[in-house]
Amino acid sequence: MMHAFGHWWAREDLRYDHERLVFCGRDVAALAAAFAEPLFLYNAARLRQNVGRLHQALSGLGLPFRIYYAMKANRFEPLLCELRRTPLYGIDVCSPEELREALACGWRPEQLSFTAHGMMPEDAELLAALPQVHVNCDTLSAIRLLGEHSPGRSIGLRVNLGIGIGYADSDRLSYAGQRTTKFGIYREQFSEALETAACHGLHVTWLHCHAGCGYLEAQLASFERVLQALASFSDKVPGLQGLNLGGGLGLPHRANDVALDLGRWVGLIRTHLGHLGLEIAIEPGDFIVKDAGLLVLRVGYAETKRDRRFVGLNGGFNLAVEPAFYDLPCEPVPCRPRAGPAEVVTLAGNINEALDLWASDVALPPVEPGDFMALLNAGGYASSMSSNHCLRGRFRELLLQP
Amino acid sequence: MMHAFGHWWAREDLRYDHERLVFCGRDVAALAAAFAEPLFLYNAARLRQNVGRLHQALSGLGLPFRIYYAMKANRFEPLLCELRRTPLYGIDVCSPEELREALACGWRPEQLSFTAHGMMPEDAELLAALPQVHVNCDTLSAIRLLGEHSPGRSIGLRVNLGIGIGYADSDRLSYAGQRTTKFGIYREQFSEALETAACHGLHVTWLHCHAGCGYLEAQLASFERVLQALASFSDKVPGLQGLNLGGGLGLPHRANDVALDLGRWVGLIRTHLGHLGLEIAIEPGDFIVKDAGLLVLRVGYAETKRDRRFVGLNGGFNLAVEPAFYDLPCEPVPCRPRAGPAEVVTLAGNINEALDLWASDVALPPVEPGDFMALLNAGGYASSMSSNHCLRGRFRELLLQP
Repeated sequence: MMHAFGHWWAREDLRYDHERLVFCGRDVAALAAAFAEPLFLYNAARLRQNVGRLHQALSGLGLPFRIYYAMKANRFEPLLCELRRTPLYGIDVCSPEELREALACGWRPEQLSFTAHGMMPEDAELLAALPQVHVNCDTLSAIRLLGEHSPGRSIGLRVNLGIGIGYADSDRLSYAGQRTTKFGIYREQFSEALETAACHGLHVTWLHCHAGCGYLEAQLASFERVLQALASFSDKVPGLQGLNLGGGLGLPHRANDVALDLGRWVGLIRTHLGHLGLEIAIEPGDFIVKDAGLLVLRVGYAETKRDRRFVGLNGGFNLAVEPAFYDLPCEPVPCRPRAGPAEVVTLAGNINEALDLWASDVALPPVEPGDFMALLNAGGYASSMSSNHCLRGRFRELLLQP
Repeated sequence: MMHAFGHWWAREDLRYDHERLVFCGRDVAALAAAFAEPLFLYNAARLRQNVGRLHQALSGLGLPFRIYYAMKANRFEPLLCELRRTPLYGIDVCSPEELREALACGWRPEQLSFTAHGMMPEDAELLAALPQVHVNCDTLSAIRLLGEHSPGRSIGLRVNLGIGIGYADSDRLSYAGQRTTKFGIYREQFSEALETAACHGLHVTWLHCHAGCGYLEAQLASFERVLQALASFSDKVPGLQGLNLGGGLGLPHRANDVALDLGRWVGLIRTHLGHLGLEIAIEPGDFIVKDAGLLVLRVGYAETKRDRRFVGLNGGFNLAVEPAFYDLPCEPVPCRPRAGPAEVVTLAGNINEALDLWASDVALPPVEPGDFMALLNAGGYASSMSSNHCLRGRFRELLLQP
């Protein structure tokens, strides 16, 4: 495939310019040199573009729609504030503290959609104090709890369609599928859920589903089955106002991943749901933030052990767990590539755990201690899931403005 | 197997007394009721006993020995302070901040052993300022860096014996084995390592190895091979003072795990290393803290979905990652078991991720919302690896004294 900027991942705001990696107009190595800690860089313009692309695509739907940003992907406060400048409808929160944090960053209660697993009595109390927040219930007990605390409220029901989509290889990311998961209300209990809601004076106005994460072009056939299954629920609910399709929109992690064609994606939604005349909501996280972020680490050593050449970085899997724990690919990019023949190396983190490898057997230009390495697609599910394991959890985050 | 206190995990300080789970003399449910957050409970006496058992076993070795506690397993400050009351020699630290934290809790520099992967220039500077700290180098570049900053220092070399041991099923925990890992110096580079040390004025007085974690009786044959391989390195090092066998001592996670026979374990060390007349060091983490800790969570719901009964707890895998990410078993124990027939349930956490299950298809007495559930073996690699994912990372830790 031809790439406008020379590498599969390169684009106007992320590319080499005179052998320097430039991101959001900054020389990444020069910026990183000012920081002692591992550094997450986010491009505010890219965030806005990503929301803009989704908004534009959904505008072709011919239906009212809402885009909620799933803040569990990245809750860096400047980023949450920046997103208020985009055409987002609001924020998808999945816990009481996420709800409070979204409020802290200037979002209004009516802009928030709360879909948390495992509602506790104190959560129902919190929600009763914020009647403008939209709540999706994913168990019968959550319906009962909310009904007791907020009678008369309009709610959504999270349903489980029994269809899982997303990263093909990873069992760990299957939200729905053959095996019964903890999420949502299955068809077998759907009537009971509607009765329970009615019985507690709750009005079901939305249906919600989330089938998996990281879906790309290759998974659109499964997405289509999700839409069909969801449509089949909608006629069971008088007074239904909207359908929330959850998150899961993926983005390429390696050279041969085929990006989602948003036009085709919207076309499928129109085909299967358009006739219902309902509002459509989505809850992307990664799609908005992931490719808007880099993790920049410093090289500590480059050394051959037996048959393998290792390059050790000053940060490990506790800062970004996806490569180690979810087997997702990690793309390392030297910030100032040195001249010389490429070497096949294994990139290691600095944690005393065997799984702490960023990437195995990748071809890179020669690297030396002190060089900076950018790891791409670090904007989502990295800092937000980071730990202080081995007391190596320090990092800085910067929201860059072009 | 017969169990003195009725369950495979029960012991004097952890058992049912009149249908109440009692830990360190406390009624666990009564204690947990005073806390809104997930609660880690540690028994100080159990910590001391665990160190005591190791100390007693090693006393039969007929050689001088050192037990370093691997603080990456649990760095709760009251626990680090409590351990000063035990016959530990000191603390095994694996990062500069762990070193500083051990000092902060009253440990002296000469009690610390530093074995970190990926030494940076600033780490070598820190170590130069603390010449009493013992340092094990695991790459040639670390030897060079340390030599430049601390000429004349005595050091250890971490070697990689190419033998992995521990949790049989988990690739994720293989520290050494067939495939070349990032850890340690291989036999092929050992002479070069010794020359590099000499060349930088460093004296190699210790050899260090770590072959894996969680080894039990069934893995002692592999441990024996580790000892043989380590012994074969020792005659290459004139002036050698000691051998550090690393950590990895495991403990039972389920009913049919056979605990390590410390007498047999020490016997193997004596057989294979005794004739060398060197000092022996070990670096246990889990063995000291894991079974001294519980994680106590509250039940949010108990509900059947399709064919499975789920019990949802008010804490998820971000508080204790081993079941979700390392596939280690989790033993749930109801704090006040209700009367009635056992039910087969799946215990779920409160994180919006599919892998957030504590235990699948386990038989438990009936449970109801508000009940407390203790998860055993939560003293090691739980709070220390926890994250604030979904902003659900809050917990309290208590060090109980009998």
